[in-house]
Amino acid sequence: MTNLNQPEDHVDVLIVGAGPAGLMLANWMSRLGIKTRIVDKRSTKVFSGQADGLQCRTLEIFDSFDFAHRAWRESNHMLEICLWNPDKDGVIRRSDRIPDTIPGISRFQQVVLHQGRIERFFLDSIKEHSNITVERGVMPTSFEFDASKAADVDDYPITVTLRTLTEEEATPQQQQATNGAAVSDGLFRSNLAPDDTDDMLRAAELNSRANQTQTVKAKFMVGCDGAHSWVRRQLGFNLEGDSTDYIWGVLDIIPITDFPDIRMRCAIHSANAGSVMVIPRENKLVRLYIQLQSTVTGGGKADRSKITPDMILKSAQRILHPYKLDYSYCDWWTAYQIGQRVGDQFSLQERVFLAGDAVHTHSPKAGQGMNVSMQDAYNLGWKLAHVVKGYSDSAILKTYQSERRRIAQDLIAFDYRFSRLFSGRPAKDVMDEEGISMEEFKMAFQKGNMFASGIAVDYGSSLLVAKAGDSGEQGDGTDVASKDKSLRVVSKHYLSTGISVGMRMPSFKVLNQSDARPWHLQELLKSNGRWRVIIFAGNLTNRENFGRYSQLGEKLSSPTSFLRRYTPPGQPIDSVIEVLTVHAGPRTSIELLDLPEIFHPYSEKQGWDYWKVFADDQSYHEGHGKAYENYGIDPRRGASVIVRPDQYVSWLGEVDDYEDMERFFSAFMKPQPELAQKELPVAAEASTL
Amino acid sequence: MTNLNQPEDHVDVLIVGAGPAGLMLANWMSRLGIKTRIVDKRSTKVFSGQADGLQCRTLEIFDSFDFAHRAWRESNHMLEICLWNPDKDGVIRRSDRIPDTIPGISRFQQVVLHQGRIERFFLDSIKEHSNITVERGVMPTSFEFDASKAADVDDYPITVTLRTLTEEEATPQQQQATNGAAVSDGLFRSNLAPDDTDDMLRAAELNSRANQTQTVKAKFMVGCDGAHSWVRRQLGFNLEGDSTDYIWGVLDIIPITDFPDIRMRCAIHSANAGSVMVIPRENKLVRLYIQLQSTVTGGGKADRSKITPDMILKSAQRILHPYKLDYSYCDWWTAYQIGQRVGDQFSLQERVFLAGDAVHTHSPKAGQGMNVSMQDAYNLGWKLAHVVKGYSDSAILKTYQSERRRIAQDLIAFDYRFSRLFSGRPAKDVMDEEGISMEEFKMAFQKGNMFASGIAVDYGSSLLVAKAGDSGEQGDGTDVASKDKSLRVVSKHYLSTGISVGMRMPSFKVLNQSDARPWHLQELLKSNGRWRVIIFAGNLTNRENFGRYSQLGEKLSSPTSFLRRYTPPGQPIDSVIEVLTVHAGPRTSIELLDLPEIFHPYSEKQGWDYWKVFADDQSYHEGHGKAYENYGIDPRRGASVIVRPDQYVSWLGEVDDYEDMERFFSAFMKPQPELAQKELPVAAEASTL
Repeated sequence: MTNLNQPEDHVDVLIVGAGPAGLMLANWMSRLGIKTRIVDKRSTKVFSGQADGLQCRTLEIFDSFDFAHRAWRESNHMLEICLWNPDKDGVIRRSDRIPDTIPGISRFQQVVLHQGRIERFFLDSIKEHSNITVERGVMPTSFEFDASKAADVDDYPITVTLRTLTEEEATPQQQQATNGAAVSDGLFRSNLAPDDTDDMLRAAELNSRANQTQTVKAKFMVGCDGAHSWVRRQLGFNLEGDSTDYIWGVLDIIPITDFPDIRMRCAIHSANAGSVMVIPRENKLVRLYIQLQSTVTGGGKADRSKITPDMILKSAQRILHPYKLDYSYCDWWTAYQIGQRVGDQFSLQERVFLAGDAVHTHSPKAGQGMNVSMQDAYNLGWKLAHVVKGYSDSAILKTYQSERRRIAQDLIAFDYRFSRLFSGRPAKDVMDEEGISMEEFKMAFQKGNMFASGIAVDYGSSLLVAKAGDSGEQGDGTDVASKDKSLRVVSKHYLSTGISVGMRMPSFKVLNQSDARPWHLQELLKSNGRWRVIIFAGNLTNRENFGRYSQLGEKLSSPTSFLRRYTPPGQPIDSVIEVLTVHAGPRTSIELLDLPEIFHPYSEKQGWDYWKVFADDQSYHEGHGKAYENYGIDPRRGASVIVRPDQYVSWLGEVDDYEDMERFFSAFMKPQPELAQKELPVAAEASTL
Repeated sequence: MTNLNQPEDHVDVLIVGAGPAGLMLANWMSRLGIKTRIVDKRSTKVFSGQADGLQCRTLEIFDSFDFAHRAWRESNHMLEICLWNPDKDGVIRRSDRIPDTIPGISRFQQVVLHQGRIERFFLDSIKEHSNITVERGVMPTSFEFDASKAADVDDYPITVTLRTLTEEEATPQQQQATNGAAVSDGLFRSNLAPDDTDDMLRAAELNSRANQTQTVKAKFMVGCDGAHSWVRRQLGFNLEGDSTDYIWGVLDIIPITDFPDIRMRCAIHSANAGSVMVIPRENKLVRLYIQLQSTVTGGGKADRSKITPDMILKSAQRILHPYKLDYSYCDWWTAYQIGQRVGDQFSLQERVFLAGDAVHTHSPKAGQGMNVSMQDAYNLGWKLAHVVKGYSDSAILKTYQSERRRIAQDLIAFDYRFSRLFSGRPAKDVMDEEGISMEEFKMAFQKGNMFASGIAVDYGSSLLVAKAGDSGEQGDGTDVASKDKSLRVVSKHYLSTGISVGMRMPSFKVLNQSDARPWHLQELLKSNGRWRVIIFAGNLTNRENFGRYSQLGEKLSSPTSFLRRYTPPGQPIDSVIEVLTVHAGPRTSIELLDLPEIFHPYSEKQGWDYWKVFADDQSYHEGHGKAYENYGIDPRRGASVIVRPDQYVSWLGEVDDYEDMERFFSAFMKPQPELAQKELPVAAEASTL
C-alpha cells in the first residue's frame, strides 16, 4: 500500500532497501502486524546474478515462515565438494571428495538458487500476511533524528523525506551494464514472468509520480540498503577493513566441457594459472568463480573496464587445462575485488539500525553474503516487533548489535583466511614456503563448512540468553546483561548435552500425541512471534516425573503466572508464550486428556488443543526421531527449554524450574497493564464439556 | 480460452465435467499440447464437502505432475486407525490400533484434503502449462456420432452443441441446499480467496452470454460428468448394481469432545446404536460418517428431507456414548444411501469415453471415489494424447476399458463387503450369527487398506503390458492382446522380485551420478508423456556387465533403432522414449563420460546431459536407497524395465534384450514418417567438444 499521496505519514518501522535483508525484516513485520513501510530506489527486483547460496540455517528460517519448500524444490542441491589440485607434474587431479553440508547438522542442506526467486518468496509471503508492499523507485533524501524523543518508545524520533525517482534513475545498474554480452534472461522467463506482472505495473505507476516527495515519521528505521548504504552515511558510521589484491571473475554459463565434476561444487587450484570455484546452479547453469591473473597491489582499485567475459573464460580454460571448457549460453557475468569490512556501529540509540551489506562486506565465494544479511534482519525483526507491541522492554534491542556485529566480525575473519588460502598458489612440496598447503586448505574448507552452514552461530550471554560469562566478551563488547543482577539466570547446561544455550534449537522428529503424525521439532517453532517453553517431561508413566510436570502445570495455570501476566487480556493463553510438551514415550502409554489442562488448552468454540503435546516414539513411516537421545536429555529426569521467537535457545533448566523461568522473563517482559481490570480467560475453568 | 464466439469449433478432445476426473484429463492434455476444451455446467468449483481422501497412489500421481507437495502440506495426515468395539458390557472400548497406510508401500501416506483445494491444484497446473481454461456454466445439449468417420483417427466423428447456462441454472446444487444450517466457508477463506478471483470473473463473463450456443466437432469426447452423466445417457449405457438399505449422515465439524481418538481415523461399532467413522481433516475439522437408525428396506429411496444436522448429531452421540460430542462450528453436512454400481461399457468405439462417477458409484467411506475417478482419467489421458499425436496406434485405447472397468468392478466388490461389515451390528459372542465378527471386520479393514492405497492396482496382459495369460480374463473381458501374435512379448519376471509387470513402478532412492543428489526413482518418471526404458545395468566395474550395457548402447544408437524410429525428426532423442540408467554403484567407481553417449546424450548448445545416469549408493544425508535389493535385481546380472507414461510397468527383461524391447514397442508405436527424408539428429557424431 503506497501512501505517497499523503503529505505526511507515521509508521512504526521504515525499512530502506528491499534486498534479502529488507525483505526478511518486512516479512517479520507482516507476520506480527507492525505498521511498516519498505522503500527501494530500484524500479524492479533483481533478475540475474548476485549471491545465491542458501545455507541450511537459512532454509530452516525459511521453513519457519513456510516457504522453504519453494526454495528446496527450485534450487540446485549441492551435495559434494570435489577438491582438485596439481599433481607432481602440475596436472590438476581430483584429490578429495567431502560432503558439502556436514551430515546431521540440519534437516536441510546447502542449495543454490537465484536471488530473484528468493525475493519472490518473500514478496509472496508478505502479501499473504499483510498489506505491506515494496515501494519501488522511492528513496529517502533527508534524515533527521530528534534525540529528545528517543526515550519514549512510542514516540517518533525519526523524520525522513521520501522522493519518487524517475524511471531512468530507478533502473538498476545491472541492466544498464550488461550491454548485450550474450546475457539474456530467457531461461528464467517461465519461472519469473507470471509472478512479476504486479511489480511491473506498480513500477510504472510509481514512475508516473516522479519527483513527488513525502515526509515520514518513524519510531524505528532500518537501513538494509547495501554496501553504499545511504542510511549509514546519514548516521556517519564507518565500515572498517580493507580490500585484498585478488581480482576474480564470475561467469554464469551452461558449460560445454569434459571436466568430470562440473555438476559438483569444486575448488580447483591449478599449479600456476590460479584457482576456480565451481558452483552448479539450477536450470543447467554453472557459476564459475575464476581467479584473474591481473591483480592490483597495495589495496588499490582494479580497473574493471578491461575485464570481458572472453578474458574471464580464457583464464578459466588455463586453470582447467587439460580439460576443455566452452559455452554457448551465458546468463550473467561480472568481476570483483575481494574486500572485507565491518561496520563500527550497528545502531543509533537503538532507533536506527543497519543490517546486511550496509554493515559487512566480504567475498561471495563462501556463499555467506545473502545468508548473513537475512539473518541480521531475522535477529532484529521480532525484537523490534515485541518492543513496538509493548511485550518487551526496549533494552532487548541492544542485543542486536551485540549478537550480529560479533557474527560479522567472525565472518570477516573466516573470509580473510579462506580467501588467502583459495587465492594462493599451491605449494609444490613441503619446502615451498610461499605456496599454500593443500592439506591446510582442505582443513580450512571443512571447518569453513561448519561456519558456512549458519548452524554454528552461538549468541553470547545477555538478558535474552541465560548463560554464564561476560556479555561484552561473548558479543561485540556491548553490555547486554540484565541491569538488575537478581534477574540474571544461568542455565543448567548439564541437563542436556544436545541443546546449547545461545545456539538455535536442534531439530529431531517427534510424534503428535493426538494423531501420531511425525514432525520435526523445528516445524513446531514457526516464526509467528511467540516465545516457547518446551517441557521435556521425561517418562510420564514414572510417578515422580508426572508429579513434577503436574506441579509445573499448576503454577503455569495460576492467575498470576508469567504466562498470564505477559499475555494481553482477551488473547489466547498461547499467543505470547506457547507451552509445548515432549514426553519420552511410548505415545500409547498416556492419554492427552489425562494431562493437566494448561498443556492442551481448552476453547469453548474449538474444544481441546490437540497440537501441543508430543511423544518421542517410533513413527509408522519415518523411523524413530530418538529426540531424548539426540538432545541428550535423561528421560528419567527431563528438562525444560525456553526458546526465543527466532528459535535460539534462551534457557535450559529442570522440568519444574518455574521460578527460574519467571525470573528469566521478568528481566525484559512487560506485564500487560489491563490484566487486573479484565476478566481472565481461564482455560482451566472453561473445560467442562 | 473460451471459443464461444465462433459458431463452430474443432477440437481433439472435448471433456464434459470439470470435477477431479475431468481436471485430471485436462491436466494431461495441457502437458502434452493437445487441443482441448473442458466444460462444466456448474458456475463455480466446489467449495465444501465432497470426497476428500487422497490415497498414496494419487499423491504419487500428483507428484508426477509436480503438485503433490501442495496437497501434502495443506492436508491432514492420517497415520493410525483406531478400532472401537463394545466390550462385554456394551461400552465402546479401543480394541486396536493399526497403521492407516501400510508401511513401506509408498513414499506417501494417505491424507485428507478438501476437494476444492485439489481442483485448485489442477487448475493452477493447467494454467501453467497451456491455454486451456474450464468453461463454466456451459453444458452440451445435443450429441451426434458419425460412425463412418470413426475409422480415421484424424477425423471428427463427434458433434456436440454447447449452450451457456443462465446464472440460476449454473448455481451448484450444493449451495442451494445448505439453507443456512450453520454452514459457512469462513474457515477456508484464507485458503481459497486469492486463488479464485479469476474463476469468479470468468463465471460472471460467461453468464452475460446466457443461452448462446455453439457447435463443436471433436475427435474424442470424455464424459467426466458424474453419477447422473449426460454423456452416458447419450450413449445409452447403463450403470449396473444396487442400492443398500443403509442410510448414513455426514458432519464436518470442529468437535468438542472427550472422545480420546478424535484426531485419529476411527471405526466405531456401538453395541446397538450403529457405527461411526471418524476422519480427521485439515483446519481442525473432523468428518464423521454416522449410521442413521432410519433405514429403508428393499432397495428403495430414503427420504432425505427428514434428515437434519441435529438428528445426525444425536445419532453420533448415541453411538459414542459414554463419551460426549458437540460442536459450535459445522462446515458442511449431508446424508446418503449407499449404492454400488458399475457401467456396462466405458466407451463408444474408443471415441467417446466415460470416467469417474459416470461409470462407478459406491460408498464414500473408503475414501476411494475421487481417487479412482482421477486414476481413470490418468489412465486414459496419455493414451488419447499419443493417438492424437500419431505416436501410437489407436488400438491402445481399448486398454482403457479393459484396465479401468476391471478396477471399478474390484472396487465395488470391496465396497460391498466392507459396507456390510461396517454397517452391521457387532456380534455379542461367537454364537451370535446375525452379528458381525469384529475380528473379521479388522481383517477386512487391513486388507482394504492395501486396496484403498491404490498401490495394489495390477493391469492385465495387453499390448501395453507384456505378461503371460489371457488379456480378457485379466481385464474386464475385452480382448486387448496384440493382433499380431509374433509381437506378443512376455517379460522375464524372474529378473526382479520387486517389480511386477502391470503394477506401478515402485520407488526407492538413487543418486544422480553427476552431482550425488538422491532422488526417489519415481521423481524421475514425471508425467510428461514419455515412455521410459530403465537400464539397471548392474555393477559396471564388472567387465561382462559393462559389455552388455555397451552393446545395448550401440543398438540404441543405431540410426534404425526404435529410439530413433519412434521419435519425430528434429526432436531430442529422449522426447518420446527416455533411457535412464541405474547402475549398482559405488557411484565413485565410474565416470559419466566413460559411458556410451546414448546414455547421457550430448547437445551442441548445452553439453552433456547430466540427468540420465544414477547409482544405487549411500547418500550423504538421506541414507542408502538399496534400490537393487528392494527391486530384487541381481547386481551381477541387472535387468531392463519399460515403464509406461503413467508409471505402470510394461516389460521386464535382460539388460541387453534389445530385440524384445523393439518387438514390444512395434506392436503399437507408429514409425515417424518423415524419418527417411530428414537428417538424423545423431548424438554420437556431435560429441566433439
